[in-house]
Amino acid sequence: MTESVTCEYFLKNNHSLKKFIDDNKGEKFVLVTSGGTRVPIEKNTVRFIDNFSTGKRGSSSAEYFLQNDYFVIFFYRDTSLKPFDRSIEKMFDHLKVNNDNMLAFDGIDKTKQQKFLNILSLKNKYKKNLFLISFTELFEYYEALKVILSILRPLKKDVIIYLAAAVSDFYIDEKHMADHKIQSRNGEILLKLTPFKKGDIIELLCGSKENFLVTFKLETDEELLYSKSKKSFEYYNHQVVIGNILSRRSKEVILYTPKEKGELSETIINLSKEETEKNVDIEEKIVKYLCEIHNKYRC
Amino acid sequence: MTESVTCEYFLKNNHSLKKFIDDNKGEKFVLVTSGGTRVPIEKNTVRFIDNFSTGKRGSSSAEYFLQNDYFVIFFYRDTSLKPFDRSIEKMFDHLKVNNDNMLAFDGIDKTKQQKFLNILSLKNKYKKNLFLISFTELFEYYEALKVILSILRPLKKDVIIYLAAAVSDFYIDEKHMADHKIQSRNGEILLKLTPFKKGDIIELLCGSKENFLVTFKLETDEELLYSKSKKSFEYYNHQVVIGNILSRRSKEVILYTPKEKGELSETIINLSKEETEKNVDIEEKIVKYLCEIHNKYRC
Repeated sequence: MTESVTCEYFLKNNHSLKKFIDDNKGEKFVLVTSGGTRVPIEKNTVRFIDNFSTGKRGSSSAEYFLQNDYFVIFFYRDTSLKPFDRSIEKMFDHLKVNNDNMLAFDGIDKTKQQKFLNILSLKNKYKKNLFLISFTELFEYYEALKVILSILRPLKKDVIIYLAAAVSDFYIDEKHMADHKIQSRNGEILLKLTPFKKGDIIELLCGSKENFLVTFKLETDEELLYSKSKKSFEYYNHQVVIGNILSRRSKEVILYTPKEKGELSETIINLSKEETEKNVDIEEKIVKYLCEIHNKYRC
Repeated sequence: MTESVTCEYFLKNNHSLKKFIDDNKGEKFVLVTSGGTRVPIEKNTVRFIDNFSTGKRGSSSAEYFLQNDYFVIFFYRDTSLKPFDRSIEKMFDHLKVNNDNMLAFDGIDKTKQQKFLNILSLKNKYKKNLFLISFTELFEYYEALKVILSILRPLKKDVIIYLAAAVSDFYIDEKHMADHKIQSRNGEILLKLTPFKKGDIIELLCGSKENFLVTFKLETDEELLYSKSKKSFEYYNHQVVIGNILSRRSKEVILYTPKEKGELSETIINLSKEETEKNVDIEEKIVKYLCEIHNKYRC
């Protein structure tokens, strides 16, 4: 079975992650963060601010890292997609119980059946190479990330930190937070969003200098992408920033790496028409490219 | 197969729902709404306000309505739980592909296997009695609800309208909405939440006078529950309001029905210690109780 813990449990007891790393000494590791973080609006939380992320990028990237012989620590939002499950979820709609009281496919052809079986086989093949930790809220994410990074730090160049989670830049300060569910009868409401302190994040990541750091930028405004990615390199000791424009993120990304004088090299990874038709995941190409750079970095 | 459409499709083409109703003339129907509605913060939506709802109440209620011989229109948030799936999701972790290239259980005992098989059998048994429509955002929810109610209205007393979805009371007016992803570099941000016009909802529901109307109230503050439920009866032509306190909603609800002089009768439905230990769903008891009242109402 894949080891699986919640953030809450992990913050009290992290020896199973340490064991996962010890048991696989000498291997390559990757931390994949995935999904969005929740920011509560009320102390007794009924409502929260969230992010469109389904965790598709993180979960499919994790699958390809596994298939590239990485051991994966998958740190994901409890409601978002898990590796492999995203592709077999629909299997439920095509299963029945047959006369022998056994599971059987129903109403789909052999090719589709085989596709499901192949993914299930992959899931089982790699289950011991995968370690799951789930989070829900922004502050929980940061607390646990701090601990995970400190455990991974000694792996030095053998670990990729791949921060695909869509982490909120804002939170609602407790002093501005209602105790109970906000009532609508009182008319319009102003919510005060406080930007998360960049300093805390920089400090967190700067401790992991030797690890191979990949972060993501997502914008809807194309003009901001280069300049904001450049800023990222000034803050952290980065290897790669993966730039996304919301509307075409599943078909094209820009990989930024350092060039000279603070400028960035841009490598565009995209899907050809043929690949799009064949439902190729862009993450397969992103991960392949990163594995190549990471291998060079390790030497 | 269960018929399944998105809101977007349904708003353009609703003949399949009409057919579902025509094909099952003379039967009892229920509309179950489920999950939370999303309220976008930006026009190019990256962030939104959401609600803690997992859709557990709606999805399990739908299961019990099906088992009580109702035909169910399940109007649910695209990311929330679907009937039966909530109980078999974990099945993935216990499946493998065996040597004959067939699906087989792995690492769980016969009792647990049988439990999964039973639920899968139920899912298949009722698949033609279930019609799925998925929504994402608040305004989409209202637009489609309007159409669904108008289609169900002629069923008169034969239909229960069971509004279990956690619908946002607020939205962000387009004129206060940023075009692009809000940037955090500019410091604190004020979000203006506009209460949704109660009048629109009242008008929407008052048209369905003869249908059997069940709505939900969820509060974190116990003192508000009775008074707010009472208000609901003043607004709509109600049969039942189901009151929930956030912290114990899975173990206890209060069913409010009209008494006299505008006061309400309260019926508490809760799980005994024994039932809790046996993982009985409180929705099984709620639905059983409602079916009894609805049967009387039909006569």
